[in-house]
Amino acid sequence: MTYCLAIALDKGLVFASDSRTHAGVDNINTYRKMHSFIWEKDRLLVLLSAGNLATTQAVVRRLEAEAKNDKHEGVTLKNANSISEAAEYVGRISREIQNYQQGLVKQQSSFNVGASFIFGGQIQGSTPELYQIYPEGNFIGASPEHPFLQIGETKYGKPILDRIVKSNTSLEDAARAALVSLDSTIRSNLSVGPPIDLLIYEKDSLCNETQINLKLNHPYLAGLRKQWNTGLRRVFDELPRFDWESKP
Amino acid sequence: MTYCLAIALDKGLVFASDSRTHAGVDNINTYRKMHSFIWEKDRLLVLLSAGNLATTQAVVRRLEAEAKNDKHEGVTLKNANSISEAAEYVGRISREIQNYQQGLVKQQSSFNVGASFIFGGQIQGSTPELYQIYPEGNFIGASPEHPFLQIGETKYGKPILDRIVKSNTSLEDAARAALVSLDSTIRSNLSVGPPIDLLIYEKDSLCNETQINLKLNHPYLAGLRKQWNTGLRRVFDELPRFDWESKP
Repeated sequence: MTYCLAIALDKGLVFASDSRTHAGVDNINTYRKMHSFIWEKDRLLVLLSAGNLATTQAVVRRLEAEAKNDKHEGVTLKNANSISEAAEYVGRISREIQNYQQGLVKQQSSFNVGASFIFGGQIQGSTPELYQIYPEGNFIGASPEHPFLQIGETKYGKPILDRIVKSNTSLEDAARAALVSLDSTIRSNLSVGPPIDLLIYEKDSLCNETQINLKLNHPYLAGLRKQWNTGLRRVFDELPRFDWESKP
Repeated sequence: MTYCLAIALDKGLVFASDSRTHAGVDNINTYRKMHSFIWEKDRLLVLLSAGNLATTQAVVRRLEAEAKNDKHEGVTLKNANSISEAAEYVGRISREIQNYQQGLVKQQSSFNVGASFIFGGQIQGSTPELYQIYPEGNFIGASPEHPFLQIGETKYGKPILDRIVKSNTSLEDAARAALVSLDSTIRSNLSVGPPIDLLIYEKDSLCNETQINLKLNHPYLAGLRKQWNTGLRRVFDELPRFDWESKP
């Protein structure tokens, strides 16, 4: 399983992802699910991936190869005129690769070659945008009313985002909320695991982004996890008592 | 959808359930999903239900009718020798009724008549027990290592239980954790809704239980929701800052 999320804020974008992959419980690995494509002063694009690892890796290789190939005709990540045009392109590549993989495994119809993506960034001259790309290749955008997008194992980490994240949340607060959301998911689902990749992009900076990879024992992450857990426990202990607890 | 949970503690049992049912988004209703069967000084049994409402209501009617019928041969809730024997009986009734309902809707194979239950309580002379009954009729028990069971929309409310609930948690703390877990779920999923039914059973009291039905605007529940939300926000605001926030 996987848990990735991204948040579209007034001040920029935040992306976060776990790193655990598994094919059955006896085949667990660590793979990066965050891929950034950066052309300084022109564009920053970030792709988060969930689903079949053969599919998502093939998509990333294809996106990289076509962006590097100056003779490639048609849209690439490097020449797309907008984030939405690039999202459509990613969705199309994803469909093509899924169709190809499906052909390879057609004897096993239950084998899931599907993949989902979160894709966003900024291109010079436009505002930042953020999309969720379905296995079918179509996509939806984040909105001021619903500024965060999630793929993979999304439920455990949603309550904290619902409570904290608004469009006008600061980049740092949104990044912390993303870490707490990932921490809650990692605690509740063994198939989501560290290290956590985090990318913070400040609007219009093209491309002064901050990228870090946090292992579970990284002092900052360990401190945040401990403080959040202790704090929750304290808030819980202070919750109002029922009337019947004072009954004789 | 539905969210029900129960917790097996050293000091007794806690049961909690929401009350929202829906058949499509334009047909939303309120039904009680908690059913208690109490014979003073002999036994207290509690059933929480999720799934097809026609199935779960038919199961409850059947359990009630057979318990009231003194001429009924075989196991009933009233005469079962143990909670596990009663759980097996509930599972068998559930299978029978699902099979019958499946026959009625056989033209529409996608129509789901399945139902899940949490079932527990105490019978005089035995210790309290708690089980989760699958649609297939088989069941698993809570354990000291995993003292809580959930059915329905279980994920949003699991992180807080993972953090707070242990076997030696007090009944009141476990009840508050159940309310917080339900609150998180209600906030994140429209198909889970109030009022909340809560039952707290003190071990060996046969049957001095506390049952309350909390509407969302009940002063206690409203206060708890507000204090939890404010407290989480405060803990969040106090989380450690990243190093890079202090960079020039």
